[in-house]
Amino acid sequence: MCETCGCGDSDLVPVEVHEAILSENERGARHNREHFNEARVLAVNLMGSPGSGKTAVLEATARALAGKRRLSAMSGDLATDNDANRLEAAGIPSRSITTGSACHLDAKLVHEGLHDLPWRETDLLFIENVGNLVCPAVYDLGQAVNVVALSVTEGEDKPLKYPVMFRTADLVLLTKVDLLPHLPQIDVAAIEDGLARTMPDPAVIHVSAITGEGIDRWVGWLEEKRVVARSEVAARV
Amino acid sequence: MCETCGCGDSDLVPVEVHEAILSENERGARHNREHFNEARVLAVNLMGSPGSGKTAVLEATARALAGKRRLSAMSGDLATDNDANRLEAAGIPSRSITTGSACHLDAKLVHEGLHDLPWRETDLLFIENVGNLVCPAVYDLGQAVNVVALSVTEGEDKPLKYPVMFRTADLVLLTKVDLLPHLPQIDVAAIEDGLARTMPDPAVIHVSAITGEGIDRWVGWLEEKRVVARSEVAARV
Repeated sequence: MCETCGCGDSDLVPVEVHEAILSENERGARHNREHFNEARVLAVNLMGSPGSGKTAVLEATARALAGKRRLSAMSGDLATDNDANRLEAAGIPSRSITTGSACHLDAKLVHEGLHDLPWRETDLLFIENVGNLVCPAVYDLGQAVNVVALSVTEGEDKPLKYPVMFRTADLVLLTKVDLLPHLPQIDVAAIEDGLARTMPDPAVIHVSAITGEGIDRWVGWLEEKRVVARSEVAARV
Repeated sequence: MCETCGCGDSDLVPVEVHEAILSENERGARHNREHFNEARVLAVNLMGSPGSGKTAVLEATARALAGKRRLSAMSGDLATDNDANRLEAAGIPSRSITTGSACHLDAKLVHEGLHDLPWRETDLLFIENVGNLVCPAVYDLGQAVNVVALSVTEGEDKPLKYPVMFRTADLVLLTKVDLLPHLPQIDVAAIEDGLARTMPDPAVIHVSAITGEGIDRWVGWLEEKRVVARSEVAARV
């Protein structure tokens, strides 16, 4: 199974190989985190299933923060630069990280991605992970916060079925809530109950990138985290 | 990166470890395939993102084939028996394969799953993979056909962004088409164009598990594959 991912166990992967991969990633994540702290940039690891609305949320974020905060982004995908192009068009300096067949970003890929991006001159760096509700959860990228986009169209039981992801989430954005009137079978309370049972410190914001619902709360959450992160860094200096 | 998955490349994973994992899986898949052929059971590997509607399609399939074909199923999930329970309730003898933190099924897990399931007495065995549009594509389970469920809510560019999955697909079920009237921004022709560019032999059926649209075509496709597979096996004996 997929032991280098951290997802599974296999007699075929020597323990030392697995440990080497994760400890190498941790070293890289620590290094990235030092960069982010030093530059006072809040790094956000945005994860979620394919099509959960990660890019659309970032486009809406760009609209909400235009002229107020400086944003930058990296987008991880197996193929195409589509997401980075969409974010550039929305006014966010962005860089695509094309992973080929890899199912998640790791600290090294993020570090390489920093080189061609004016992230130091921004307040917020969004790292849009590969669309995958499993593997990205295991890899620390050096981010300050983990945010998971979960679409209401994905059904009610995803938090309980993919607990590894939701256990690492600081915030869940429940996306595409504009579709709820057309989804009579979806019980939002059941989704929230699942999140309450898996997230260590449950925090959920309902958003719609189309109507703009909840984007102000999301932007407020980001601002709060940014202030906290900056004061923590200041206290350490 | 995730080399034991086959998704990525890492200097840290020795080539022989990677090769050992895939060749071990191939051996297992070959063994499963012999079982399936011998019992004249069509094994269907059903893949797709979390929430793409895999279980709902199988529930609709059970309704359409009730009294006509005998079905069995395995459902892979990180946690919970929810899907297998839903399929049992729909009248399909089912078994849950709980992977813990693993992002895909492999041939060995499927083989173990066969032991507690009366699959030999059925015509069709559905193997519902872990919800993931990346890693499951790399692992042969011994199935006769690969089917990918892709929801219209996932956006238009998924085939191009996740080409590894769509390159292995014999059929794509475009699910949740009942929601299309509420998704004016989704251009179905763009999705189909992406599939035409990635699938080796493009085949797409539009379905809705709620309205039943397209389920007759899907069931017809399965029947056709079942007949072809049986005649191929007969020709070899």
